[in-house]
Amino acid sequence: MSKMSIVQEKVQQAKSLLKEKKIDLWMTFVRETSAGYDPVLPMIFGKQTLTWDSALMITASGESICILGNLDKTLAEDTGAYDTVIGYDKSIREALLETIRRIDPQTIAINISKDDVFADGLHHGMYLRLVEFLAGTPYAERLVSAAELIGALRGRKSQAEIERLRRSAATAEAIYDTTITEMGLGMSEVEVAQMMLNDVAQRGLTTAWAENSCPCVNVGAESALGHASPKDLRIQKGMIVHFDFGVRENDYCSDLQRVVYFLRDGETSAPEAVQHGFSTVVRALEAAVAAMKPGITGEEVDAIARRMVVEAGYPEFKHATGHQLGLETHDGGTVLGPAWERYGSTPFGRLEAGQVFAVEPSLIVPGYGIIGIEEDVLVTEQGAVYLSTPQKEIILR
Amino acid sequence: MSKMSIVQEKVQQAKSLLKEKKIDLWMTFVRETSAGYDPVLPMIFGKQTLTWDSALMITASGESICILGNLDKTLAEDTGAYDTVIGYDKSIREALLETIRRIDPQTIAINISKDDVFADGLHHGMYLRLVEFLAGTPYAERLVSAAELIGALRGRKSQAEIERLRRSAATAEAIYDTTITEMGLGMSEVEVAQMMLNDVAQRGLTTAWAENSCPCVNVGAESALGHASPKDLRIQKGMIVHFDFGVRENDYCSDLQRVVYFLRDGETSAPEAVQHGFSTVVRALEAAVAAMKPGITGEEVDAIARRMVVEAGYPEFKHATGHQLGLETHDGGTVLGPAWERYGSTPFGRLEAGQVFAVEPSLIVPGYGIIGIEEDVLVTEQGAVYLSTPQKEIILR
Repeated sequence: MSKMSIVQEKVQQAKSLLKEKKIDLWMTFVRETSAGYDPVLPMIFGKQTLTWDSALMITASGESICILGNLDKTLAEDTGAYDTVIGYDKSIREALLETIRRIDPQTIAINISKDDVFADGLHHGMYLRLVEFLAGTPYAERLVSAAELIGALRGRKSQAEIERLRRSAATAEAIYDTTITEMGLGMSEVEVAQMMLNDVAQRGLTTAWAENSCPCVNVGAESALGHASPKDLRIQKGMIVHFDFGVRENDYCSDLQRVVYFLRDGETSAPEAVQHGFSTVVRALEAAVAAMKPGITGEEVDAIARRMVVEAGYPEFKHATGHQLGLETHDGGTVLGPAWERYGSTPFGRLEAGQVFAVEPSLIVPGYGIIGIEEDVLVTEQGAVYLSTPQKEIILR
Repeated sequence: MSKMSIVQEKVQQAKSLLKEKKIDLWMTFVRETSAGYDPVLPMIFGKQTLTWDSALMITASGESICILGNLDKTLAEDTGAYDTVIGYDKSIREALLETIRRIDPQTIAINISKDDVFADGLHHGMYLRLVEFLAGTPYAERLVSAAELIGALRGRKSQAEIERLRRSAATAEAIYDTTITEMGLGMSEVEVAQMMLNDVAQRGLTTAWAENSCPCVNVGAESALGHASPKDLRIQKGMIVHFDFGVRENDYCSDLQRVVYFLRDGETSAPEAVQHGFSTVVRALEAAVAAMKPGITGEEVDAIARRMVVEAGYPEFKHATGHQLGLETHDGGTVLGPAWERYGSTPFGRLEAGQVFAVEPSLIVPGYGIIGIEEDVLVTEQGAVYLSTPQKEIILR
């Protein structure tokens, strides 16, 4: 038997998760997916774009059914993940209702979530269409959110997915190595970023997130915090250079931050203030990773790193301690974050074995720049293991 | 003054369209846009990804306001399209409500549409969040669909957009020229497609839609109709080779179909059946284009081409006669299509000057293959003009 594709693996995994979550039918309802994107598609269908109303249905009884426009039919057949592919010409209505009536589900999970963008792929107009199609049947009442199911499916990585994530991190590290060796005094954020982008392109890869802020390169204390495009700030002695960067390789993303210090004349190590900031971030990161066992909540992990940074005398960092990593850099599900409204309920989920997180505490050292380290780790039954090679010392140049 | 970017042009255009459509406020509400995609973003924000709850607000009184996470703030400032950029740390709630109260709109258009995927960017969970934020204010009652506004904004192309579309069509034609010269007997669909993809990559471009079905290459009568990946079918004498292909250049898409016939030994022209099919498609396309004046409905244009194909003795083609073209290959808004449920209300829109359509009647010649020609045309006050160089004769090889 030939090796399963990741789409085939994930559709199989969904069937058993439906049983675990006690949901009879999971339905992904999309159209013209180049614009009406649902983030579950790369997992359960692939990169092909679907044109007309399409329903991807997976059942707890082990069926996988795809109903879609006849002109798209071979795309579904080519995935090898759907046992039944039903095409239509004029309207999905008839085939959709017939199939739902045959399955007669007590619960139909659809992709809606107030909190998790990866479980919120159903667009509002499509939701209204679906409710119209189901009007006059008992099924409109049986719609529930697929958020838990999608969180588990996306979060619990298969061996093949973990290997891809490890490889993606190794590639990002190789690009960091070259960049950090080759960059020098007087270079601007933009120039350093361009070196990295050239390396990414030469490898035939793309960046893990949008190129205008991947890499982030922060030169010194004047640089903009956060998801900002590189600017014209130039490297001088006595500055921290901070990076945030990852690649997308075989569809899977890495996300790593690294910190370099440019020595002043006469310095043989970073100044005390920089050292203290760096070791604080390392300790916060290590403490968070040490706590990342199945069952702990994202909020609990976040609090550990956050408290260490605050207790060391720095302001609280204004972002979560970590996020999941996979087909996307921010891969949804449980977040290692505080109970702030912008994170919704995502910090309250419990960690599960098979999840991969990017962990990224940070702080600012006034007068020097940003210190953030970010490592990619896998949660196992025995605790978290690094997929990246963690930065333990500040790199001196 | 420096030249306006297309995002700046489109935000300006939106302000005047709001007046025309008598809408006080248009609000695009998104988060983590790498996964929670809204197809208006490339028009009014650009390619940067927004991470946390973000509101892009444009008013009939001429304001443009962006409320977003502080770490994303510079992305909004960098667009140069928003007069006011408001950042937040923990929740968008306060700034959002304060801004809406200040504007005090009688109507708030949001991106929801049962019919037009390009006007349906609001995900259902985000809709629920928005309604929660507005609970207890008079504004939840004032939400309306932005579909007409978005249709006009997306449809009415600026001069800069039209020039990009023309250039994109010219590039696709150049790739067709090389391919059709270099392909030969015995080559498979996959091999011909790969030649084209190599050409696209050498030009530093990407395909107009997903690579696995762009190009479509259909060799002979056995080839799969529609959006199918190329297969192992090989070119033989007496076969039609049909292509569907376009490139994305400077963000704008082309979409062209071309038809080639491989002569049998002794033939100097295509067989009568192939000729008749080809001239039928040309006549149907020309008749549709001739009718494309502002004010006619999409359904009326479709009926003209459809009737000519049927009256020439072929089965009705199972797709619309045409669709708009722009930042996406299927660019939403009015469709030149029949009143089939899968097209919703999109065929009933009236054509407007500035719209660009791909027009693509087709038919099958039994025993020979698929004949479909597709041309890119601009609607002007005086009627439609070609942006591509129309194929008038079947290409013989």
